Amino acid sequence: MMKKGLLIVHTGNGKGKTTAALGLAMRALGHEQRVCIIQFIKGSWKYGELFSAKRFEDLLDFHVMGNGFTWKSKDIQKDQDTGRQAWEFAKAQMGSGTYQLVILDELTYLMKFGFIRSADVLETLRRKPENVHVVVTGRDAPQALIDAADLVTEMIEMKHPFKHGIKAQKGIEF
Amino acid sequence: MMKKGLLIVHTGNGKGKTTAALGLAMRALGHEQRVCIIQFIKGSWKYGELFSAKRFEDLLDFHVMGNGFTWKSKDIQKDQDTGRQAWEFAKAQMGSGTYQLVILDELTYLMKFGFIRSADVLETLRRKPENVHVVVTGRDAPQALIDAADLVTEMIEMKHPFKHGIKAQKGIEF
Repeated sequence: MMKKGLLIVHTGNGKGKTTAALGLAMRALGHEQRVCIIQFIKGSWKYGELFSAKRFEDLLDFHVMGNGFTWKSKDIQKDQDTGRQAWEFAKAQMGSGTYQLVILDELTYLMKFGFIRSADVLETLRRKPENVHVVVTGRDAPQALIDAADLVTEMIEMKHPFKHGIKAQKGIEF
Repeated sequence: MMKKGLLIVHTGNGKGKTTAALGLAMRALGHEQRVCIIQFIKGSWKYGELFSAKRFEDLLDFHVMGNGFTWKSKDIQKDQDTGRQAWEFAKAQMGSGTYQLVILDELTYLMKFGFIRSADVLETLRRKPENVHVVVTGRDAPQALIDAADLVTEMIEMKHPFKHGIKAQKGIEF
């Protein structure tokens, strides 16, 4: 059977969407595959991953987009320009032939708020190179993205410590 | 606020329970925290993680329990003995003071099939050292475990490629 790059979506309101993508990265890195992680929203991935990335600097490229930008500025045109640049960068990485796995962390956020055109995203993901696995994370994945995906996991929050007044923990939450 | 080690459960029928635990490991390792991964069922973690582990050999210990054992042998007494040994080993690691994060992968399986006493598991997890985060993964987490946990995520399978005849992919599935 032909090798096929999967389109994987992690959605839902629970913890673990980004964390499970990180786990997929670790798994791929373990096979000495090259991995590109693109973080569209600053802050959802933090220090822990960056330290880990150093141990894989020969295999893992980690990009934080929108760094220094405010996605929710009052200037919607500026946000759309920033979003489009970030998305074009992501497209270039997917098409570069360098990576076996590309993670688009919180991409759904940009789709939801109209910073990038969903039709362009869907078309690009449908036509992505056959040998590249792509993982898209984020809440509220549009139905069309779910329809296009090969594997979709919804992370449901059954219980969360912050609701019980427990502080975020280094190494677990960030 | 006092630092508290969380009890985290990843359950549900979807992909990502173990993968999200791996992501938590990567995050903790990124903070130079020491991590112990105990795999109770052989085969649910495979080559990829083992290669990755080499890059963290100063921080990460990885144990495969039940290796060479058949949990579903016809000798229930033997399975119970094996299960009990594996669980005692896990208890010792949690209590060793060495690790900030201990992952008990597929522990629920041993509880479900009665290879270890659930009451002992619950009591141990409730009394675990305050400074150790513990992650339990596996389907069918018992309600008492969910009640005892600080954070529970249920991974729901919305769509799975194997149902569409796509083969398991190196780096993604194993």
